[in-house]
Parts: sequence; structure tokens; C-alpha cells
Amino acid sequence: MNRRRFSRGLALLALTPSLPAFAQTAPPLRTNAGRLRKRLEDLSVFGRPAGGTFADGVSRTGFSDADVEAHAWLQREMRALGLEPKVDAAGNVSAVRPGTVPGLAPILFGSHIDSVRGGGNFDGDVGSMSSLEVMATLIEKKVATRHPLEYVVWAAEESNFGSGLHGSRMAAGLIEEGEFERVQNGVTKREAMKRLGGDASRIAEARRARGSFHAYLELHIEQGGKLDRAGVPIGVVEGIVTIDDYDVHVRGFANHAGTTPMAERRDALVAASQIVQAVQQIANGEAGAQVGTVGQMTVRPNAPNVVPGDVEMTVEFRDLDGAKVARLGAALKERCAQIAKASNTEVEVVFTSRHEGARATPSIQAAIEKAAASLSLNSMRLPSGAGHDAQAIATLGPMGMIFVPSVAGISHSPRELSRWNEIAQGADVLMATILELDASAPWTPGR
Amino acid sequence: MNRRRFSRGLALLALTPSLPAFAQTAPPLRTNAGRLRKRLEDLSVFGRPAGGTFADGVSRTGFSDADVEAHAWLQREMRALGLEPKVDAAGNVSAVRPGTVPGLAPILFGSHIDSVRGGGNFDGDVGSMSSLEVMATLIEKKVATRHPLEYVVWAAEESNFGSGLHGSRMAAGLIEEGEFERVQNGVTKREAMKRLGGDASRIAEARRARGSFHAYLELHIEQGGKLDRAGVPIGVVEGIVTIDDYDVHVRGFANHAGTTPMAERRDALVAASQIVQAVQQIANGEAGAQVGTVGQMTVRPNAPNVVPGDVEMTVEFRDLDGAKVARLGAALKERCAQIAKASNTEVEVVFTSRHEGARATPSIQAAIEKAAASLSLNSMRLPSGAGHDAQAIATLGPMGMIFVPSVAGISHSPRELSRWNEIAQGADVLMATILELDASAPWTPGR
Repeated sequence: MNRRRFSRGLALLALTPSLPAFAQTAPPLRTNAGRLRKRLEDLSVFGRPAGGTFADGVSRTGFSDADVEAHAWLQREMRALGLEPKVDAAGNVSAVRPGTVPGLAPILFGSHIDSVRGGGNFDGDVGSMSSLEVMATLIEKKVATRHPLEYVVWAAEESNFGSGLHGSRMAAGLIEEGEFERVQNGVTKREAMKRLGGDASRIAEARRARGSFHAYLELHIEQGGKLDRAGVPIGVVEGIVTIDDYDVHVRGFANHAGTTPMAERRDALVAASQIVQAVQQIANGEAGAQVGTVGQMTVRPNAPNVVPGDVEMTVEFRDLDGAKVARLGAALKERCAQIAKASNTEVEVVFTSRHEGARATPSIQAAIEKAAASLSLNSMRLPSGAGHDAQAIATLGPMGMIFVPSVAGISHSPRELSRWNEIAQGADVLMATILELDASAPWTPGR
Repeated sequence: MNRRRFSRGLALLALTPSLPAFAQTAPPLRTNAGRLRKRLEDLSVFGRPAGGTFADGVSRTGFSDADVEAHAWLQREMRALGLEPKVDAAGNVSAVRPGTVPGLAPILFGSHIDSVRGGGNFDGDVGSMSSLEVMATLIEKKVATRHPLEYVVWAAEESNFGSGLHGSRMAAGLIEEGEFERVQNGVTKREAMKRLGGDASRIAEARRARGSFHAYLELHIEQGGKLDRAGVPIGVVEGIVTIDDYDVHVRGFANHAGTTPMAERRDALVAASQIVQAVQQIANGEAGAQVGTVGQMTVRPNAPNVVPGDVEMTVEFRDLDGAKVARLGAALKERCAQIAKASNTEVEVVFTSRHEGARATPSIQAAIEKAAASLSLNSMRLPSGAGHDAQAIATLGPMGMIFVPSVAGISHSPRELSRWNEIAQGADVLMATILELDASAPWTPGR
């Protein structure tokens, strides 16, 4: 009882950071920056290139040996804090610290620790280790919360077996057709999942109910350069963009580059190049933050002395506004039809997938801004152009994301970098936001 | 003696085809179209896809098992005509039929029988089998010639071990730096050559002297669609184009396609696409038959959700006029510099090679036209956009080439096709040209 009352007093402290008189006399609660950095460095060895250093990044793809070792290490770290890790049927790891008010839903927070091949030590890791540090600080400082706090590390967030957000999608019941039977490196996903303790036959048990949490919070590196360029340490995510993917197949006619006059050619690469330019024009054709990308292109037969007969390419459009994303795709189809006609080629545009984005809950965006202000940190709102576990979890309840700067906007690369002091600031804002939300009313599904 | 006098009479017949009174009473000498077709069909089995037919084309790459078998078959066919095949240190096969006037240099004619992977049964084969049929007809009809006639099949004409025109280049002494040490499928060219009876250590013995032949003639399929479209059966080649090759390397910056705003991108593929368009504009920018091609492009990292950071591409320009070809390359460099600046990328343009073309000897072009006219066949002059053994041999003496139509201009494909009657007409024109040249004065080096 004593402990509870004491804890609630501390929680109140954190919940009223804007009280000027109070703020001047007692500094806001802060995480331990050194401890956070050490955990990030400790984690970085799992999947580090042989003979490399922290700066050489990491290849810790989901379900790989390095990922399995990192998960084992993570659970040891959790236990050392007195937390009891649970592994669900998707391979997600979580632990709950009880709250002081019976019956309240937990505040859920965390991220992922798998990486792309040849990735950096910040994507996912920063949010996962900051969240653990928040738990460590609250435990160490004996700060109790009304709501239970649930720390989670989602399994296999990066693209793997043909899709990403594995663990969070499983939690949201967003299973794709036949996805457990997909094969990568000769192994089915069904088999690979077992390496993290997952079990496809019991996957329904990994599902979380709508309204089963008070709020979901995820701290992440921006992976873009907006915060870094603006010199703003905290990003308040407005939402995660919707992504539409297309496969574009250009069929011309392969022929001898020496004997086929320019006017007689049906050059698939010339047409494909016009499509690349069209994607630029479409994405730049209206105001807004939408992007359009041709990331992949395969030319056949791909010989210096043969007019290309066949080009396959990918096109993707992203924006917070799903209707706008669809509109850009319609413009692509129209332009491709024009290009096909003018170039005497056939152009097939196949819509391959929509990744639904998610809007961040406005009250959580406000809570993050308030938390940043309480720590005298500037913040700015911005969309997330990258996908995150948060977009799957947003289908179940309120969601918010905090971004910390990525130096020069580089990500999915060993050169990915976030500054240690800004990571610590992000962890502090995450903790302050949790305490802010701990004081707010419970969420009702359907609101 | 009798034979010689008789033969010369027949030769005179062929040499005076334009004498109307004579032409009306004795039809011009013709090759045996059925025998020629049969040899082309017999040859087509070496390298035919398993279970395929003639229409499925052939993969008879230089020095392959199929090529070795075809060479053995060829030598059997030559012996059956009473010719004694000789194999030189490059793997070229040739045989001489003596002439009637001592001391005259031979009239050399032939082509190649190797193919590209997935090629057709006409490229090279038509010229090689037509030339053999000319030999067969002259032997059968006991038509003697003043000059010796030398039939040749050049080894490995198609690109192999990094360059083409193997046998003819060796004959011309055009050996590339270190070419025998190049490795393909784990085997050096030095080793591979041996399979056709070649010997790199004695390669100098394969060299032919300047002025060692009276004329070199090569019959070939056009590989383009000009004759077919014009409905003209005989092409009189004006020359073989000069080819300049460039490697273009575009360096941008690979970044996350979701988090990198359009304005911040350094997209190597967007810049590369502009270069593809520029090559089109440069090639179409002045009158003439010049062509420009981007045939090969490699995009990195080549993932749908990553802004391409690096693109490597090839550019080649071709024209009969070497100075024009160089001018087109200069324009490419200028445009690439502009594109690099505007797209915030680095574009490196490396000139990798010039394949010197060759002008066909005017008097031989005239002889071919005369021969065609003697057979009441229309002819037209045109450049060869493709490379041929004739361009290497042209460095040694007078050269001429005869083209027969390629249906729809398709080549280097199983769909490559030339009509049997037009092939036979080509063989007839080759024979008539040989007899026409047999009457002409010897060539003096330096003329």
C-alpha cells in the first residue's frame, strides 16, 4: 500500500510536467542514457559482419541464427529487470509490469530487433532498447502506473518470406493467404517461425483483441532526413503511409542493335525509361508529401548489342491519404497506355498489393507533444513514409509513434546513424508520454 | 589441257552474262537449291534444342560440343566433294581448289557456322553452306577458274570469351591483349580453342598476309529488315559499320523509398532513364542510318522499396562513318554531364572499345551488282549494321559482301528466317560474282 501511494505521487509528478513551479524545483524523470547505449551496443553483436565493428552494421534477418541469439539475449535482459518474458505463437516477446488500478488495459510499447540484410544498428533496435530502458527506469525509480505496462518486441518486422510486420500482423489477425507455406532458402515460414518459439498451428493464440490495450506507443528512428535537416529532436508521427505496389511489364521486341533501324525498333527499355520519367512527373504533379519510386528493373536479354525486348519494373506510390495513392496509380496506368501506343510496345500494369497505412490517434500525438515540451524538446509532426508494426497494431486500438532523427536520413544501411543524445531524448519522451497517457481515460473500441 | 580450255569457256559464259544474245540461248549457271537446303538442314541438328525441330533454332556457340561436331561434319562434306580441309592454328577450316593460271592469288569466300545461344539456322550457316554449294556446283559442272578458289569457315565468329570474329581476327593478326587467357565457364580460351584444332602457341601460323588473296567474298543474311521490306532479294553491302561502345555508370544514393522525399532523392535510375532518352535523341538527331542503343542496364540495390543508388548501363553507337560515330559519343558525354548536374548524381562515361568497320571494295560492289543483274535479280546497296568476319579480312585485301533478306529483320533468335528461294538466289549471285572477279585484274596491296 505504501509503495502504491508513493508510486502514484511520482506518477503525478510526471503527469504534470507543465506545472512551471514544479518543473523548476524537480527535474523531469529521465532514462539512463549510458545504460541504453550499452544495451544497443550489446545487441549489435548479433549479426555483426565477421571482424566488423558497431559501425559495420548488422544482418539480423527475422528467424536467422543472429535473430534467435538476439531474442535469447533480450529475454535474459528482461529477466534481469525482474520481468517475465512470454513468447507467443508468432514469436513475439512481451512482459507485463502490473498497474495499480485493477481492470485497466495495459499501455503497450516496443518495437522490433530484426534487421534487413546489411542494415544498421538503429532501425527497430532504438525503439526496442529505449522501451526496455523505460521499463528499467520505472522499476529502478519505483514509479508505479495506474495501467499495466506491457513491453513487446515484435518478431520479424522486416520483409521476410514475402511480407513484413510478421509479429504485429499476427497479433492483429492480419494473416496473408498461404503465408506459412512460403519458402525462403529452402525452408517454409511455418518451420522458420519455430526458431523464435512461434507455432503456426496455434497462431490464433497470438491474436490480441480490439480494445485490449489502453494505447500502443512505438519509438523509432525516422529513416528519413526531415528531423535532422530541421534540427528538431522529436518527431510526432501523424500516421503511416499507405503503399500501393505495381508490377509493370513492358514487352517490345528484342533485335540486333546493329541491323535494326531506329524507326523500326520496339525497344522495351526506351519505353520503360519513359515510364520512370512518368512516375516522377506523377509524384511531383501535385502538392503534398507523396512519393513514387521505380526501385527494381530487369532488362532482357540485357546484352550491349541487342535492342531490349522485355523490361519488368516495380512502381510504388506512398502517401498518408489512401485515396491519393489510388489516384496516382490510375495516372500511372493512363500514362503507360500512352507510352505503349507511342513506342509500339505492350505495357501491362498489374496492381500487386496495398499496404494500408494508419493514422496516429490525435490524442496520443498531443500527449507526445506535451511530453516533449515537458522535457524542453522541440517537436514536429510528420508522416512516416516507412511501414511499422504500429500500423498493424493500430487496427486494434489507439496508436502513436515517436521519431528520433536519422543522420542524413540514411537507413537500411550500415551507415544508418542516430546520435546517442537524441536517442536518450527519444527514450525520455517515450517515458513521459507513457506517464501522460497513464493519466488519461480508457479507450473505448469504436471511438 | 582440254579440261582447262573447256572450263575457261564456261567461265567466260558466266563472265559475260549481260550479252543478251548469249543469255537467251544459254541460261546462267545456277547452284543446286535442293542440295543447299539439305546441307542447311543437316547442319541444323548440331546444337538443336532437345526434342526440337529446325524451327526451334540452334545453340552452337563457338568451341562448344555442338560446334565441334558441326566442324567434323563440315570436313566430311568437304572431303565428299574432293576438297582437302585444312585446320589452321585458330581452328579455321579451309580448302583450296586450284586455278588454271599459275601464280594468281586465290578468291577467298565463306562465312561461319557457330551461332549465338538461342540463335537461328541462317546467321553464318547460309553463307557457309552457299559457299560450299558454289564449290560443289563448279566441281560438278567442271567450271575451272583462273584463280584458285579457297573456301573458308571462320571459327567462333559470334561473341565468345569477350569478343567476336575469333578466326578472322586471328587470320588478320588482330589479337586482343591477353585474349587467350580469358576464362568462360571455367575454361580459358587457350584450352577451348583446342577443341576445334586450334593452338594458341602457334597462332601466328593462322595469320594471312596482306595481298594473299584476290578478293574475299562473304554471303550472309541481312539480319535487318531493309531487303525484306523493300522486296529486293540481293543486298550489296557498302561496308560494315564502325561500333563505339561506352560503359555509363550513374552513382546516386540508395535510400528508403518511403522516407526520402522526392526533392531529396539522388535516384540513379531516374538519371539513367534520362540517358536512355538522350541516346535516342542523339541517334535520331541527324539524317542518316546511324543507331544508338542502350542494351544492358543493371540497377542496384534493385529492390521495390529502395531508391536506386547505382546504375550501370552500356551505350553503343554504329555508323559506316567512323567520324560520325565519334561525334555521337561526344554528344553522349555532353548530355550525361548535363543530366548528372540536374539530377545531383555522378555520371561516368567510359569509352570501352571501337570496332573498326570496313568499306566494301567498290569494284567488288560493282561485280556483285553485275552478277545479280545477270541473274535478273534486283539488288540494292546498304550498310551492314552487324559485324562480320569480312571486316577483319578487309584489313588484308579487297572485300565484298552479299546479303539475302531476313524475314521481318529478325536475327539472333530461333525466329530468324530466310526464304529458301532467296537463299538459292544468293548462292547463285555469289557464284556469278566469283566468276566475274575471276576475270578481273589482281589486286595490289596499297591500292
